[in-house]
This record gives sequence, structure tokens and C-alpha cells, in this order.
Amino acid sequence: MGNKTVIIGGVAGGATAAARLRRRDEDMEILILERGEYISYANCGLPYYIGDAIKERDALLLQTPQAMKDKFNVDVRVLNEAVRIMPEKKTVKVRELTSGRIYEEAYDTLVLATGSSPIKPPIPGIDGAGIHTLWTVPDTDAIKSLIHEGNPKRAAVIGGGFIGLEMAENLRAQNIQVSLIEMQDQVMAPLDPEMAQLLHENMVMNQVDLILGDGVRSFEETQNGTIIHLSSGRSVTADLIILSIGVKPNSGLAKEAGLRLNEKGGIQVNSELRTSDPDIYAVGDVIEVENFTLKTKTMIPLAGPANKQARICADNIAGDHKAYDGTQGTSAAQVFDLTAACTGVNEKTLRAMGKEKGQDYHSVIINQKSHAGYYPGATPLILKLIFGNQGELFGAQAVGQDGADKRIDVLAAAMRLGASVSDLEKLELAYAPPYSSAKDPVNMLGFVAQNVLDGLVSFIGPAELDALLEKPQQDDFIVLDVTEDMERLVFQIPGSYHIPLGQLRDRLDELDKTKRIIVYCAVGVRSYNAARILMGNGFSDVQVLEGGTAFYKSMHY
Amino acid sequence: MGNKTVIIGGVAGGATAAARLRRRDEDMEILILERGEYISYANCGLPYYIGDAIKERDALLLQTPQAMKDKFNVDVRVLNEAVRIMPEKKTVKVRELTSGRIYEEAYDTLVLATGSSPIKPPIPGIDGAGIHTLWTVPDTDAIKSLIHEGNPKRAAVIGGGFIGLEMAENLRAQNIQVSLIEMQDQVMAPLDPEMAQLLHENMVMNQVDLILGDGVRSFEETQNGTIIHLSSGRSVTADLIILSIGVKPNSGLAKEAGLRLNEKGGIQVNSELRTSDPDIYAVGDVIEVENFTLKTKTMIPLAGPANKQARICADNIAGDHKAYDGTQGTSAAQVFDLTAACTGVNEKTLRAMGKEKGQDYHSVIINQKSHAGYYPGATPLILKLIFGNQGELFGAQAVGQDGADKRIDVLAAAMRLGASVSDLEKLELAYAPPYSSAKDPVNMLGFVAQNVLDGLVSFIGPAELDALLEKPQQDDFIVLDVTEDMERLVFQIPGSYHIPLGQLRDRLDELDKTKRIIVYCAVGVRSYNAARILMGNGFSDVQVLEGGTAFYKSMHY
Ligand SMILES: Cc1cc2nc3c(=O)[nH]c(=O)nc-3n(C[C@H](O)[C@H](O)[C@H](O)COP(=O)(O)OP(=O)(O)OC[C@H]3O[C@@H](n4cnc5c(N)ncnc54)[C@H](O)[C@@H]3O)c2cc1C
Ligand SMILES: Cc1cc2nc3c(=O)[nH]c(=O)nc-3n(C[C@H](O)[C@H](O)[C@H](O)COP(=O)(O)OP(=O)(O)OC[C@H]3O[C@@H](n4cnc5c(N)ncnc54)[C@H](O)[C@@H]3O)c2cc1C
Ligand SMILES: CC(C)(COP(=O)(O)OP(=O)(O)OC[C@H]1O[C@@H](n2cnc3c(N)ncnc32)[C@H](O)[C@@H]1OP(=O)(O)O)[C@@H](O)C(=O)NCCC(=O)NCCS
Ligand SMILES: CC(C)(COP(=O)(O)OP(=O)(O)OC[C@H]1O[C@@H](n2cnc3c(N)ncnc32)[C@H](O)[C@@H]1OP(=O)(O)O)[C@@H](O)C(=O)NCCC(=O)NCCS
Repeated sequence: MGNKTVIIGGVAGGATAAARLRRRDEDMEILILERGEYISYANCGLPYYIGDAIKERDALLLQTPQAMKDKFNVDVRVLNEAVRIMPEKKTVKVRELTSGRIYEEAYDTLVLATGSSPIKPPIPGIDGAGIHTLWTVPDTDAIKSLIHEGNPKRAAVIGGGFIGLEMAENLRAQNIQVSLIEMQDQVMAPLDPEMAQLLHENMVMNQVDLILGDGVRSFEETQNGTIIHLSSGRSVTADLIILSIGVKPNSGLAKEAGLRLNEKGGIQVNSELRTSDPDIYAVGDVIEVENFTLKTKTMIPLAGPANKQARICADNIAGDHKAYDGTQGTSAAQVFDLTAACTGVNEKTLRAMGKEKGQDYHSVIINQKSHAGYYPGATPLILKLIFGNQGELFGAQAVGQDGADKRIDVLAAAMRLGASVSDLEKLELAYAPPYSSAKDPVNMLGFVAQNVLDGLVSFIGPAELDALLEKPQQDDFIVLDVTEDMERLVFQIPGSYHIPLGQLRDRLDELDKTKRIIVYCAVGVRSYNAARILMGNGFSDVQVLEGGTAFYKSMHY
Repeated sequence: MGNKTVIIGGVAGGATAAARLRRRDEDMEILILERGEYISYANCGLPYYIGDAIKERDALLLQTPQAMKDKFNVDVRVLNEAVRIMPEKKTVKVRELTSGRIYEEAYDTLVLATGSSPIKPPIPGIDGAGIHTLWTVPDTDAIKSLIHEGNPKRAAVIGGGFIGLEMAENLRAQNIQVSLIEMQDQVMAPLDPEMAQLLHENMVMNQVDLILGDGVRSFEETQNGTIIHLSSGRSVTADLIILSIGVKPNSGLAKEAGLRLNEKGGIQVNSELRTSDPDIYAVGDVIEVENFTLKTKTMIPLAGPANKQARICADNIAGDHKAYDGTQGTSAAQVFDLTAACTGVNEKTLRAMGKEKGQDYHSVIINQKSHAGYYPGATPLILKLIFGNQGELFGAQAVGQDGADKRIDVLAAAMRLGASVSDLEKLELAYAPPYSSAKDPVNMLGFVAQNVLDGLVSFIGPAELDALLEKPQQDDFIVLDVTEDMERLVFQIPGSYHIPLGQLRDRLDELDKTKRIIVYCAVGVRSYNAARILMGNGFSDVQVLEGGTAFYKSMHY
């Protein structure tokens, strides 16, 4: 592939590609062009530096240009922006930002690792002072100094994606009032709404003013902060506004160079990460990837995939023919006291594709403990699995204080390796009381999902139950509470009938076999056992309230 | 399979089989015979109840016979010991322990879930007062009350398996001096010695008097505690002695009934968990299983496998033909500040089978952080992977303060699903700073292992290096330190030559190309980069010190 590789962009994708390429080829000339002042920094740490969880700014800067030169013999030029690619000449036009000088740089192989940039939609007032995006080290410095010098009392975060949520948390950590404004009815779009709802509850507990289903109409700068006018008519005033409503690929260069892009501006690459020009590779946020589960084309801007792509790209430049097999979108985010993590596709996406639950796919939600319940510190862990009729794994989501990332990692690995629901039953995971249960939550997810496929259990979700309970005519079903007397005193679903699990076999004749029976308990295990008793005694239409009342209550917090 | 199932043993395997069988078959008559006073208890929690981490004794008792009756319609008879199986008559002879009455119970299907019992070898004095094993609730009560009433100052734990280590920790938590005596040169037999060494270091830091490579010759009861005489001549005096040197299957009944056993007394079962008598199943500690990796027969007494086997067994009794696919031995244990976890086979086992490293198998040890290094709380995590020439995964081990169980779970899942080293490179795991790095330690293990297979790097272990350094003649190799000046001031390997990584390319002529070069740094990453530089510049015999000096120092703590 010739002996000079020019890499545009020097952070996750770019720096990693350079490092690996050098290890594969000691003689290759490698040049990184970076328009920013910094290379190889920890984008993902920026919110935590603002929140003071990370104390040292230097901790964010993993490599300097000098270190890259010394250790990797890579020529790094920061504050040098690639302004044009000329594929026919195999050169890049570069602007040295300090001087304005323009020069041309030849390449044998070019790597585009230009990443993405925050979206700033044309909302009136969006360029006002006090409205920030968080993407780079200078962005971070600006926000950090604003907090330390301006001493803002009220902040608004626009957008409830993971960066928005991390910022909400880190601003609260600085004791700043936070409003989080999100156009959708939920934060964390990769989660399904009922899973996101668990986060909502916790955010409100952490004093976030959570504004869902409302968009920004305009920003109005005043003496006393910026007024954010919302579509609903409501308004919020803030001294500091963080805009984090998504990103767009930095593919202007690629477009001008005539490389094939998708309709969102993502650079299209083949499985070896080559663009439509065989001498130009592209990696990271700027490329279109294959959705690993659906095999459709999509954009998934995450650091893990960017790093993996960079390494594969370097290997291919060094002569290999390695394939990048698509992105699952495995991710985790700390949201106050909780961790939300997921992999694969969610139910919303399947629905939007016209798929129908129970027909084309299934899903289960279970309520487990992070580790053995009898060992101190066990906390609730809610897991959702979405799977196909043949037990194919489509996606998984987890929300909990502890152990959510672990279970999603296991599920992500299982999905990557083509596992099915029945494989989840068999996974042999490490068990000792501080870490898990003899039946790990992932096994449990496999058990429950396989039970659904085998017709041993059928679930009803909280929303579906609510819809039923709102019907004027309610004599074709019975809601059956199988908890103990004490529990029923604390909480009951209105109109439900009560038979504790332990009495059910003796009191079956109190129930009408011709009716649909919806059983509930606290988490779903006793009600599942009750359902099995009912089904074993001639009841033919029995459903279990998914996740039990613990989950139901969170849906109505 | 008829309509009466008798289950002998009512804890992990027995109670789980009964519960699942009931859910599969509402009409089956199910009877559990349990010789102890308790069923369905958390064996694995017992050490933590002794250490007061678990405060409530009740938390250990998951189900009572009454609850099993009420919820599962299972007839549970505690203090009823099965004393004989008569397969020809399909009956069991039972002794009611309270009365001594003997009666016979018929079965259509019998399940043996009799578990295992602690080994008590015929050491002189072993039946002395003050010498305890920890296996059941009464054992626990005895030890607990001894601690509270006898106020022992000095304890000795004989055996460094996971129960021994958990007991050492929990006794220290009660502020009791602890000697841990282990015949082998290492604790935690499933780990390889160099990984166990990390635990040794930490145990000593936690004031455990660690006595390795020494066995008990006799116990001598005196006025002033029990004197433990060791093979080495050394002796230890203790007020409380916990014997945890392993278990043997409770297969006496099975043997008498003529069921096929292996030479260790394990009941042999087919893949559907049927014994040599087709009406008798067996599950849990009492059975022989297939080693999932080696496909050899073995005994692996763990709660996760017992639970899984029980569920499969119940399904098969209900008419399915499900297979149990063998046991990996995935496990985790908290050992003071560290977690040790592993899955699959270790290097010792491969060696004992006559396999040779570099020929028949490979192994790598890496030193990673539990999560992103720039985010607070990241702690070192040492991972070992053992793999074959084609990248087949044989086993993995992890030791660290945090995140060891997660990585072993991912690796265990990968192994179960037939993944190879190159699959580990591709796993897409959740990354946000509090949870992991953009290249998760599991990915990193894949990268490093694949680099070994591809000849990009070659390692030397600390022990091998020590052997070299002890040779009188040392002019055929150079130990090269590529750390920074400051680091070298703090630690250096005697006789090593120093060139910081950043200067290496400029100072290559200081090194002799004809010699073997052994490169080291703190964790192995810089030295790997140095090795790539050397190999790219005509050095043909370059090795990296595995795990760097961090690991090397632990080997010499
Ligand atoms: C605040 C924040 C938190 C995040 N948290 C997480 C997380 O927890 N987990 C996760 O997986 N991901 C996270 N991400 C996303 C992750 O950082 C990105 O997916 C990853 O950095 C993408 O790598 P990349 O190489 O494609 O782009 P980048 O790392 O963004 O690098 C692109 C570089 O290219 C440079 N560039 C662009 N155009 C030019 C040009 N014309 N000339 C020269 N240089 C140019 C840019 O200046 C930039 O430095 C986070 C991102 C941010 C901003
Ligand atoms: C202190 C301790 C800590 C442990 N920690 C862990 C851990 O962290 N992780 C892990 O995976 N595993 C752990 N284990 C091991 C785990 O508990 C066992 O592997 C598991 O309980 C085996 O299940 P089982 O059903 O085969 O046997 P058991 O659970 O031991 O049950 C067997 C039962 O059969 C009864 N029985 C035997 N013979 C007869 C008879 N003739 N008639 C009537 N009843 C009979 C016994 O009384 C016993 O109650 C631990 C064990 C102990 C003791
Ligand atoms: C800093 C940076 C240039 C380092 O690149 P790198 O050298 O490839 O990465 P690492 O330092 O993690 O080292 C990984 C290499 O060391 C090897 N390695 C790791 N541990 C090892 C050990 N104990 N022994 C030997 N080799 C080891 C790995 O195999 C890998 O080499 P390979 O790619 O040739 O297989 C790059 O990762 C970067 O810029 N990161 C920051 C930007 C970023 O990712 N941001 C988004 C996330 S916040
Ligand atoms: C207590 C004991 C009898 C319970 O057995 P169990 O009912 O099979 O187990 P659990 O209470 O964990 O429930 C698991 C069942 O609930 C189902 N389930 C779990 N969560 C559910 C949910 N949210 N909704 C519906 N069903 C759910 C599972 O699918 C499983 O049913 P299945 O086996 O029919 O598929 C048994 O596990 C036991 O005795 N354990 C203690 C002994 C022991 O294991 N010791 C060693 C470890 S310390």
C-alpha cells in the first residue's frame, strides 16, 4: 500500500490507527493531521472533569504530539486542518491554523478519522453566549471556567442522550440546579421507554427538573440568564446551557472529494473499511456501519467501535484483509445512582419496522438482584431481553445500581457469537455471594425467555394492564394478587383479587376458569409459580405482570 | 416417567429440581428426603454469616419445608435420611432421624442430589474438639457460637481452596489471628501459581500467617489450644481450626445400589443426567461431569452447575430430552481486597497432561485497569488467557480488586459459545469511563493473544527470566528497561540496560542485534512497543517481560 499514510483526525480512531500501523510497519511514514490543539484525548472523560470526579486535566490527555513522535515515530501536526482531499493527485490540502498557511501533503494511503460534531439546529438564539456544546478539550475548558468564574446557579441540558445525562449528573455534582429538556418522552434513546422510566424516577429523586416531550423553540438572552422557550409554551431560565442533541459526521472533506456518503452524510466503507476510493480508508464516528443485528446500514458513534475499526484499518493498510463485522451499539452510562446499559436493537426499533410483539419478536423484563440477595449490598437489577421466534437474540437492556454493565457485556458477547436464548440458559458464569447468584441474572433471562417460547408463561406489561384497567367493562379478566397479606397492605392494584401463593391450590374454586387471569406479585417469580399452578389446573388464559409491582410502581412513580 | 418422584437431598440440586419439576408438572407427586434439619439454604453464604457480613441467620434459609409444601406442593421430610435404595423394587429405605423409625418409600423416578461432604483424612488427632468443618447450617452454628462464647484468639484454616480463603477472611473480620496452612505451594488450586501469588501477597498484607507447601502431620490437643504439627517440623497453635481440604461425593447410597461410579466415587450419568439405572437421575456435587474444555471426565462441585443440572433433570423427568453439556468450572472468590476468578482449564493441568507451552498451547498475562485509567477508582486487573495454536480458548484467570468477575463472565460465555482468540478482539463491550476502557481488558487479551499467534510478540515469564538471571554466563542476552528515568530510580532489574522507549529508535546501535533482547516496562505495553521497534529494525530474538515489573514485583513480594 505504498509507504506514506496520512491520517486526518488524531483522537480515538486516528491515534489508534497510527499506533497500530507503526507496530505493524516500522518503516511506513505516518502523518497525523489534527485541526484541534490536542490529540489522543479522553473525550469520554470530559463530563467527569467538569464534575470534578476527574481532578487533573492532564489525566485526559493520553498522548502528546511529542510522545507520539518519540514512541511511535508518528509526525503529528496539531492545529493543522485538512481542507481538501484531491484523490486524483493523492494529496491533501492542509491549512496551518496558527499561520493560515496552506500546503499540500501527498499520501499513498489516506485514513479519515475526522469524527463527528455536535448538531446545532437553526433555533433562534442558538448562538447566544451561555449556550455550549461539549465535544473537545477547549469546549470543556470553556464550560469549566464558566462554572468556576461565572458561578452559575441554574443550568439547562438540552438533549437526554448519554452525554446530556452525564452532564446533568456532573452539573448536579457541582451543586447547580439542572433542567433536562428532551423532545422525546424518554431519555436515553437506545433504551425502550419503560426501561428509561427507571432513570426518570432516579433523576427526579436527584433533583433534576426533567422536562420530557418538549422541544426548544427559541433561546432569549436576558440580563438574568437565557430564557429557553419551549414548544409547550413553558419556559426555563438558565445561566448555563449545554446542547447535546446529537452529532453529525464530519464528512465535508469526503463529500467534496467525491467519496460515497449515505443520506446522513456518513462515509460508506466496505467491510475492510475502504471508502469508494480504494486508497482512502475511513473509521470512527464519520462512517456508516452495519447494524450487527439487523444487517441494515446505520451510524453508531462510539469509542469502542472507533478503536476497533482503527486497528483493523491499520492491519489492512499493513497488508491484511480483515473485516469489520458491524456494530451492536453496546453501551453503558452512569446516570446518578443507576447504570443503564444496552446492546443490540430495542423494541421501539422493531416496532417502527412494523414488527409485532408475540408474532415477529418477543420480549421479557425481569427483576433480579445484582448479587445473591442474602449477601449485603444486593440491589435490584432490571433486565430486558428482545428475541425472535427461534430464540435469536435481538437486543438487551439493563438498568440497576450495580452489575448492569457486567450482564450487558455477557449478553453482548453472546449476541456477537450468535448465541440463542437457550444458550443463555447454559452459560456458566462465576458465582460467589458478592458477585452473583447461582442462577445468574443472564441465565434467568434465558430461562424466562425460553419459558415464553415454550408456552410455559405469558406476560402482560404494565402499560397493557393499565389499558385493560381503564376499560369500562372489566368482567372478562381477574387481576390476581398472590403476595402475602402484609405486602398487600402496603400496595395493591385497585380491583385485584387476593390469594397468597401458598393458598392458591386450595382456593382455586374462587377463580373463574373461563376468564383471563392476570397474576402479579412483587417481582414476577411468585406470580409465575402461581401461573404455572393455574395452567396446571385448567386455566387456559393466564398472564403474569412483567417485572411485578416493583416495576409497575416505577412506571407510575 | 410415572407420577412419583423422590428426591434425596434438599438443598441446591434437590430443591431446585423439585421447584422446576412442579412447574412442569402440577400433578406429579414430589417428595424430598433430607437428612439435615434444613433444606434450600445458602451454603455459599455460610462463611459470611460467620464473619458477620451477613447479619441475619434467617437470610441463609431460602425455603422452609412448609413453604415448599404451600408454594410447590412438595412433601419435604427433613431429618429423614435415605439409607438404602432398592432399584429392583424402586423403593428407598428411609430412617426418620428423630425417632429412628425405618420405612420404605416407593418411587417412579428417583433423583440423587446428595451433594458432597468435607474430607477428613485419618490424621492423628483430627477428631479433637476445636477442629471443625464448614458445610452445613449446624456446622455454622457451632463455629459461630464458638467464636462468640469461646472468644478464640488464634485460628488455623487448613486448606487454601475458596472456602478456606473465605473463612480466613471472615475470621480476620472477627479480629482473630489466622494461620492458613496449605500443602501445595499456592492457594486456590484452579489458578496457576503466578496468579495465586497475587493473592498470597494480599493475604500477607492482611496479616494472614500464610504457610504454603506444608502439610498437617498431627493435631495435639492441649490446655492451651490445639497444636498443629506440620510436616516441615514447624507447629502452629490455634484455638479454632477449620478443616477445608476438599470434598468427597456422598455416593454411598448409589454405590450400594449398584449404580456406576467413577474411581473418585462420583456417580456417572449420561448427558441427560440419568445414572446407569434409567429410573434414577443424579445431579450436583455427587456426579461426575464432563470437563467442558478437555472433554475428559471430572468432578466439579459448584452451585451454578448443580442448579443448572437440577433444572435440566426436572425437564427430562417431565419428558424432555435436554442435555447437560459439561462444566467449565467458572468460579469467583473474594479474597480480602481481591477477587480471583477463573474459567476453563489452567496451565498446570495442561502441563500435567504433558502439553508444552509454545508447542501445544500458549498463554499470556496482561495487566489492565478495571476501568478507564483516567477515571477515579481504576485498579489493576491481571488477566491470564490460555489458548491453542488455532486460537481455541482453553481457560482464563483474573485477579484484581474490581472487574475480575465481569471479565471472567465474558470469557466464560465466549468459551461456552466456542469463541476463539480472534473473536475476543471483536467483542463489543460496554464502554463508559466508570465501567471499562474503549479497549476492554477482554479485547486486550484477544489482541495480545492474537499477536502471539501472529508472531508479533513473544513473552518471557518472571520465573523464566529469574532462571536466566541465575545463570553464571549471561552474555547472550540483554535485559532492556524501557521505562523513564524516574521509574528506573524506583525499581530496576539488576543488570538491565536502560533506554527509555522514546529514545530507542535513536539508540539502537547501543544494542547487539545478535543477542536475545528481553524488554521490560511497568505493565508490558511500552515494552511491547519497544519490541516491535526492535523487530522492525532487524533484531530477531526479542521477548517482552510478561505483565511488566508490576507483575514481576508481585512474584517477588
Ligand atoms: C463528552 C463525550 C463523552 C463521550 N462518552 C463516550 C462513552 O462514554 N463511551 C463511548 O463509547 N463513546 C463516548 N463518546 C464518543 C467517542 O468519544 C467517539 O465515538 C470517538 O471519539 C470517535 O472517534 P473518532 O476518531 O471517530 O472521532 P474523534 O475522537 O472525535 O476524533 C476526530 C478528530 O478529527 C479532527 N478533525 C475533524 N476534521 C478534521 C480536519 N478536517 N482536519 C484535521 N482534523 C480534523 C477533530 O478535531 C477531532 O479531534 C463520547 C464523546 C464525547 C464528546
Ligand atoms: C461454605 C460453602 C461455600 C460455598 N461457596 C460456593 C460459592 O461461592 N460458589 C459456588 O458455586 N459453590 C459454592 N459452594 C458449593 C455449593 O454449595 C455446592 O456445590 C452445592 O450446594 C451442591 O449442591 P448439591 O445439591 O449437589 O449438594 P448440597 O447443596 O450440599 O445438598 C445435598 C444435601 O443432600 C443431603 N443428603 C445427603 N445424603 C443424604 C441422604 N442419604 N438422605 C437424605 N439427605 C441426604 C445433605 O444433607 C445435603 O443437605 C459452597 C459450599 C459451601 C459448603
Ligand atoms: C493512546 C493511544 C494512541 C494508544 O494507542 P495504542 O498503543 O494502540 O493503545 P494502548 O496503549 O491501549 O495499547 C494497546 C496495545 O498494547 C498491547 N498490549 C496491551 N497490554 C499488553 C501487555 N501487557 N503486554 C503486551 N502488549 C500489550 C495490545 O495488544 C495493543 O497492541 P496492538 O494493537 O498492536 O495489538 C490511543 O488509544 C488513543 O489515542 N486513545 C485516546 C483516544 C480515545 O480512544 N478516546 C475515546 C475514548 S475516551
Ligand atoms: C429456593 C429454591 C427452591 C428456588 O427454586 P426456583 O423456584 O427454581 O428458583 P428461583 O426462585 O430462583 O426462581 C427461578 C424461576 O423463576 C423464573 N423467573 C425468574 N424471574 C422471573 C420473572 N421476573 N418473571 C417470571 N419468571 C421469573 C425463572 O424462569 C425460574 O423458573 P424456571 O426454572 O421454571 O424457568 C432453590 O433455588 C434453592 O433451594 N436454592 C438454595 C440452595 C442453593 O442453591 N444453594 C447453593 C447456592 S448458595
